[in-house]
Amino acid sequence: MKTRIAASALALMSTAAAAQDAASTLPDAVARVAPALEAYSTEDLVGSVWNGEELSMRDRALVTFAALMTRHETENLGSYVELALDAGVSPAELSETITHLAFYTGWGNATAAAEAMAPIYEERGIAAEDLPAVDPELLPLNEEAEAARQENVQGNYGDVSQGVVDNTEQLLFLDLWLRPALEPRDRSLVTVAALIAAGQPEQMTFHLNRAMDNGLTQEEAGAMLSHLAFYAGWPKVFSAMPVAKEVFESRSQ
Amino acid sequence: MKTRIAASALALMSTAAAAQDAASTLPDAVARVAPALEAYSTEDLVGSVWNGEELSMRDRALVTFAALMTRHETENLGSYVELALDAGVSPAELSETITHLAFYTGWGNATAAAEAMAPIYEERGIAAEDLPAVDPELLPLNEEAEAARQENVQGNYGDVSQGVVDNTEQLLFLDLWLRPALEPRDRSLVTVAALIAAGQPEQMTFHLNRAMDNGLTQEEAGAMLSHLAFYAGWPKVFSAMPVAKEVFESRSQ
Amino acid sequence: MKTRIAASALALMSTAAAAQDAASTLPDAVARVAPALEAYSTEDLVGSVWNGEELSMRDRALVTFAALMTRHETENLGSYVELALDAGVSPAELSETITHLAFYTGWGNATAAAEAMAPIYEERGIAAEDLPAVDPELLPLNEEAEAARQENVQGNYGDVSQGVVDNTEQLLFLDLWLRPALEPRDRSLVTVAALIAAGQPEQMTFHLNRAMDNGLTQEEAGAMLSHLAFYAGWPKVFSAMPVAKEVFESRSQ
Repeated sequence: MKTRIAASALALMSTAAAAQDAASTLPDAVARVAPALEAYSTEDLVGSVWNGEELSMRDRALVTFAALMTRHETENLGSYVELALDAGVSPAELSETITHLAFYTGWGNATAAAEAMAPIYEERGIAAEDLPAVDPELLPLNEEAEAARQENVQGNYGDVSQGVVDNTEQLLFLDLWLRPALEPRDRSLVTVAALIAAGQPEQMTFHLNRAMDNGLTQEEAGAMLSHLAFYAGWPKVFSAMPVAKEVFESRSQ
Repeated sequence: MKTRIAASALALMSTAAAAQDAASTLPDAVARVAPALEAYSTEDLVGSVWNGEELSMRDRALVTFAALMTRHETENLGSYVELALDAGVSPAELSETITHLAFYTGWGNATAAAEAMAPIYEERGIAAEDLPAVDPELLPLNEEAEAARQENVQGNYGDVSQGVVDNTEQLLFLDLWLRPALEPRDRSLVTVAALIAAGQPEQMTFHLNRAMDNGLTQEEAGAMLSHLAFYAGWPKVFSAMPVAKEVFESRSQ
Repeated sequence: MKTRIAASALALMSTAAAAQDAASTLPDAVARVAPALEAYSTEDLVGSVWNGEELSMRDRALVTFAALMTRHETENLGSYVELALDAGVSPAELSETITHLAFYTGWGNATAAAEAMAPIYEERGIAAEDLPAVDPELLPLNEEAEAARQENVQGNYGDVSQGVVDNTEQLLFLDLWLRPALEPRDRSLVTVAALIAAGQPEQMTFHLNRAMDNGLTQEEAGAMLSHLAFYAGWPKVFSAMPVAKEVFESRSQ
């Protein structure tokens, strides 16, 4: 019981710090040139969206970080690293997120994110032993699902690029996705956020289904869309909505 | 009559300054490493495209700013802020543009644009009273059109993300679009420019129709496509052309 | 024989320098915050992908530069300029690449790339006479193919934007594509890489066919997809795969 109380108190502290962080992601320049934008930020985005109960603040911070990293919005990314850490994303999880998204949004986005993270990790005394191991014991593989996926991709694209087919199997599905430093549900969460932010709804069906197989609820997915509208822009979310609708409907049958 | 002469003289002065600004958006490095690119810039882009009569220089500056902000091309954005102001975009209009595009291309693009604008607004002595009010008297709502839009979106996506549906109504169509600091025609202009620059032609049908309902002519829309080819790249424009064709044809019937 | 030995020795030297460059594109921050990402970089990306024999290191460097320039990943672009030059891309070819991609991915990407290149060109003593001429003698035009292309575009889009149609003919197909500073095969290579990196597979059919008409082999195209998965992200490549498949199949019939 004591542990739970302590954890709960820590969560409250984290949330207060995270709320403060969310408010401070807005540069001072906004108030000077666009007071209306500052009002929308303070009242609607920070004051309302971030406190929405359908998705935890920790998940919102992770999803926001994934979206901004995907969009290569590097100049302000450090403030979202602070926010994610204060909202309860562990240093290991955030580290693993950039490793994961290196594959899903491009290496340069991950190296730029690493440069934004490094001074903050140093300042907070986060050390090598707090980070995911290079060669951990992997999670168990769902062999049947993986065999089906690989057969499908090999059949469709083996003649186009065997390199892509092989790397997808060896590096992604037999290795990266089985690394324990990020829960499969969270790995899926950042992948879907990255696809929405990158404007790639055509790749979302597989990953949103996988996210929900991994435990993401429909309510959380809907709240993620609502949250990302602010950070990726409304049109990106409106292009993702019909895909989400199809996935939700196909799973309810 | 005197007023018209003065306004006309001011327009000439603005255009000369703007033409100078357009030329100076090109960094010196271009001439050093790619003389051919400098020649295309000077002769074709600055010397010809920017002077095309189908679209005013003021509109070209607004559209270019919207495209570059959408693409997060922040390092040189200040020179396009100067150009827009000298070409006749008012400080209030440019401020409202970033507020509008925060919703349409993502918050981080808007905050980065604010950081590019702030030193220029300060240098030009643009003060708080020159900027759009936070809570102005709103423009009248076309209630019938809005009811149809909302019914359509609620019906399609209420089950997917009620948060998106509600925010789209409350923040965008009952508030942002009715703010008087940017003419509806200009609001539509920057929205369509942002969609082309973001590579989202699939979201363009609604907004190009709305732009033309709000007064954008077909000739101006065609000139915007031609202008944006340089700033967003030819393929982005070629993906937008079939959508524009469909909209133009549907409206001529 | 002596010349060939010398050229071959030079190639080896270039490759060693280029391999060193490839390793040094990774910022130190990566090891500090994400040791697993560093391991994937060193073992898989630099240690394996870059040495794949299906595509030369010179082509890999050119394709990578095109992708990163398209993604406006400017902060680290200089290290890829060094890599390209050391891997055998000539200063004139790299200069012409940014001129070409100004049209295909937007002017701001090209000017930012020029700023990354300028200090390196200065340090290496690359002078104006090493760069492509502004008005060179153009390569011969395939008049039949160009007439067909122009007729098609004029018929489809003349009513939408005559400006786009005219500039596409005059600036791109009767000028840029005929400039001798970059082989048509290489011009196509960077164009296709840019389209994949920009997430525009819908524009790839024409250019991949043109690339293969210009000498790119199917094996090279497949290896480019596999290479770009790392730099543009897996989903971008998976959206390009069906288009490549269709092009490959249509050409084998």
